[in-house]
Amino acid sequence: MKQKSIEYVPEQPLAYLSDAGLFTAGVAAGIKASGRPDVALMVAPRAVPVAALFTQNAFAAAPVLRCREHLAKTGGLARAIVINSGNANACTGAQGEADALAMCRLTAELVGCAVEEVLCASTGVIGVPLPFERLAQGIRRAHAELAVSREASLRCLAAIQTTDAFEKQAGASFPHGGRTLNVAGIAKGAGMIEPNMATMLSFVAFDGKVAPAELAQAIRRIAAGSFNAVHVDSHTSTNDSFFLLATGSEEGSAGWEQHVAQVSERLAWLIARDGEGATKVTRIEVRGAESDAIANEIARTIAKSALVRTALFGNDPNWGRFVSAAGNSSHVRVASEVSCVLLGTTVFERGEPTTFDKAALSRALSQTDDVRLELRVGQGPGSATVLTSDLGYRYVEINAEYTT
Amino acid sequence: MKQKSIEYVPEQPLAYLSDAGLFTAGVAAGIKASGRPDVALMVAPRAVPVAALFTQNAFAAAPVLRCREHLAKTGGLARAIVINSGNANACTGAQGEADALAMCRLTAELVGCAVEEVLCASTGVIGVPLPFERLAQGIRRAHAELAVSREASLRCLAAIQTTDAFEKQAGASFPHGGRTLNVAGIAKGAGMIEPNMATMLSFVAFDGKVAPAELAQAIRRIAAGSFNAVHVDSHTSTNDSFFLLATGSEEGSAGWEQHVAQVSERLAWLIARDGEGATKVTRIEVRGAESDAIANEIARTIAKSALVRTALFGNDPNWGRFVSAAGNSSHVRVASEVSCVLLGTTVFERGEPTTFDKAALSRALSQTDDVRLELRVGQGPGSATVLTSDLGYRYVEINAEYTT
Repeated sequence: MKQKSIEYVPEQPLAYLSDAGLFTAGVAAGIKASGRPDVALMVAPRAVPVAALFTQNAFAAAPVLRCREHLAKTGGLARAIVINSGNANACTGAQGEADALAMCRLTAELVGCAVEEVLCASTGVIGVPLPFERLAQGIRRAHAELAVSREASLRCLAAIQTTDAFEKQAGASFPHGGRTLNVAGIAKGAGMIEPNMATMLSFVAFDGKVAPAELAQAIRRIAAGSFNAVHVDSHTSTNDSFFLLATGSEEGSAGWEQHVAQVSERLAWLIARDGEGATKVTRIEVRGAESDAIANEIARTIAKSALVRTALFGNDPNWGRFVSAAGNSSHVRVASEVSCVLLGTTVFERGEPTTFDKAALSRALSQTDDVRLELRVGQGPGSATVLTSDLGYRYVEINAEYTT
Repeated sequence: MKQKSIEYVPEQPLAYLSDAGLFTAGVAAGIKASGRPDVALMVAPRAVPVAALFTQNAFAAAPVLRCREHLAKTGGLARAIVINSGNANACTGAQGEADALAMCRLTAELVGCAVEEVLCASTGVIGVPLPFERLAQGIRRAHAELAVSREASLRCLAAIQTTDAFEKQAGASFPHGGRTLNVAGIAKGAGMIEPNMATMLSFVAFDGKVAPAELAQAIRRIAAGSFNAVHVDSHTSTNDSFFLLATGSEEGSAGWEQHVAQVSERLAWLIARDGEGATKVTRIEVRGAESDAIANEIARTIAKSALVRTALFGNDPNWGRFVSAAGNSSHVRVASEVSCVLLGTTVFERGEPTTFDKAALSRALSQTDDVRLELRVGQGPGSATVLTSDLGYRYVEINAEYTT
């Protein structure tokens, strides 16, 4: 059995929430047995527009329920977000709901705002009550340590991690009307198409001014091309949350969306790259479907297949699995219209295998962590891209031995 | 990283196709690089009623297309079935279709019957043309060695294997009108809910007399409770095939169906048990859904989850994953109506976690290979059972390194 390394240091410009106008903190409160940081706090100088998307899972965690209620009440404004890692506060019943409210209430008291202006998120083990006293102490210490500094931003980032192999951050800045606007995003999550429980938390802030209603519309478009291309809508975990904050106070931030989208797409790629032992990210691009929605469904069918994902781990250009996985979608019925291109090499064309250098393609697969798998399934106008991670020994190790 | 053993010797009464009235043979023709047996032949003394179910995959392999055509022409009669392992003859285009026809034609010439009375099956690597000369030589040798003997039956069984960790057979006999009727079944396949390519071949024969039309109706009921409970309809491989033969010539075999069903259920369990490195089979029983179809969909959502399957491999009573997986089905919306019972222990009740001895339950999981996971999802009348295998290191090893 080969153990492949998951050592990975993403090459990326560092991004600091402080640059996007947030006070931040991160402390170790003893929620994680490891003693690593587990309470994070982000505070804006005033209530700012915020939009958020949450898991569609029927067992949405208590913090998700709490956030939905608060956002409905404020119409999309928040002053602070309080986060803990090490415990998902999911499937924890009435006690869990009381705890989520209490963590918001404590934060509101410390910050000096209405409880509805505090949002919350939790990530970690499911079904275990929060150790609330430790959490409360952590929130108090985090509040005392709030700062607008790069160091504080990094401590905040560290405190949202769970099984992540590396920290995920992305940033962008762009000139606007004589100023520079900054986008900073952080994320936690080891991405899978059928994602881990309590997996994905993403926070993207930028220091432009956008009205809550505009932000709420834009977040759907941004998520469709980023986090929802990894974490498929209908298969989200109990805690998945994506928060988007606009912290700026000056008018006229037009054109911001593409920069926020770019940062979000990078975070989504990093989440897929950290697919619990993943060695690569595969962009599955389906074209020629009847509609975009059908293309998305076909791409997801391929992306979810354990056989496809183990073949990618093995650097095995086993197009039979890719094509057959597509054939499992009820929308692919005419084999002779299907072609498959892997890393630029046509491996299957109009229903027939091609001749190609398998060893060379396998070598090419082993030398990149950004694999492109293109499938044409017919003559229709629909297309979609989905990211998936490969499935290797570390995935089993992490997931078979996570709580026991 | 722990390597778990997949040593497994199923305790089962041996079953011989010869007892069910078939001539059989199995030879090594060099299709498999390993030199192990790879051509099998089953011949009935005359054309007998046969029913078959095949993959729903859009890329149905050439032998599947050929069988569908032959069965349509004969109305459900066959004299012989010729099988090769080591090559699936799938995604092989026009050449593959010509090869499937040629293997039937050669068998028909040797046996002395119409080509339509020969069925065929292939299993192994996808997208590689059949080495037809070797296959033809194997078919000739297999025909020369045909016998009604237990030894020949076992050689036939050996020749249909690919990545199987153990051979799968099951039998039953029952008294009927002063005689004993015999059911014998063999199968190949390492079962997964989203199954391996070219995975499942099953052949069940019994020496009763049943009309083709009756057989064709019964096979659907039998498969629903056996092979289709493992290999979900919409996610079958290119080659999945289940053949059911009634070889008897005497009238009056009423009551046969339950015995054939029992043999088929046992084969299905063995396929799940051999889930490419599996250490156990989990029966996921969903109750309280709006309909049986919805219960089946919920059970499949759980059964397919890589997170559920790795938790089972780790003997981890991580009910959060089971419950959350159910929550990913669009049909489970009210968390407070959901309860979960694992190996008889209630671990989640009406939306709340229970207190239970986690270490004891983990120990119990490690000591059985037949796990029962019960989920009540509401108050409806619908129920369904699906079998799944766990996902461990060996699964990755087998599937990452299968063709490279």
